[in-house]
Amino acid sequence: MSDAVKGDPAPYYRAHVFVCTNEREAGHPRGCCRSKGGDELRDYMKKKATGLGLGKSVRINNAGCLDRCELGPCMVIYPEGVWYSVTSKADVDEVLQTHLAEGKRVERLMLKSTDKLPADVAARRAAAAAE
Amino acid sequence: MSDAVKGDPAPYYRAHVFVCTNEREAGHPRGCCRSKGGDELRDYMKKKATGLGLGKSVRINNAGCLDRCELGPCMVIYPEGVWYSVTSKADVDEVLQTHLAEGKRVERLMLKSTDKLPADVAARRAAAAAE
Repeated sequence: MSDAVKGDPAPYYRAHVFVCTNEREAGHPRGCCRSKGGDELRDYMKKKATGLGLGKSVRINNAGCLDRCELGPCMVIYPEGVWYSVTSKADVDEVLQTHLAEGKRVERLMLKSTDKLPADVAARRAAAAAE
Repeated sequence: MSDAVKGDPAPYYRAHVFVCTNEREAGHPRGCCRSKGGDELRDYMKKKATGLGLGKSVRINNAGCLDRCELGPCMVIYPEGVWYSVTSKADVDEVLQTHLAEGKRVERLMLKSTDKLPADVAARRAAAAAE
């Protein structure tokens, strides 16, 4: 039940980007976005967004573990809830220009909602929900 | 241009909560959500969400500075983009039950989009956007 409710305020940011910069211990089987460059990519994105004049209405944030580690470095853009896996500055440039400036999508980098978690992670989550 | 586009994947999380846990140096004029308890409230919220059986479809994340420091500790819930200022565990309980479990709103804790930033922050943001 997370649909908009009548009377909800107007969006505070036109687009709110969360880049996972979570760090796990070395050798963790799921890996982590930080070890794959999430931190650096977030810094780069933030700086470039300002340069493109997006800084007023678009907010680039770092975030803790978004729990799609295997597919990282990950980011999610709200309110549209579109996820990307970005691995280079060129990828970030494309998301900034195509998605955030032009309102389109970078299909080749988008995560699908059917991109499944590994079985052990899914089981852990289901167990937590059933507690 | 952040509206949904035809073909966007289904939401990965029903509700994605970002709790600001950013820390500024002591004495900063804007304050910070961490010094106001953001970290502790996020940990509490995460644990309680699991206890309420929300853990499967609701994700509670920490986030870097959401830039509404004066109104913190802040959180934002997407995709609906509703912001709350929460200052106690009782506040967190109310957001969990009323907003996340029942799909309603906790009016007394909601931030309005017209809750303005201090003039110096607004000026800094405008300058960054104009660079």
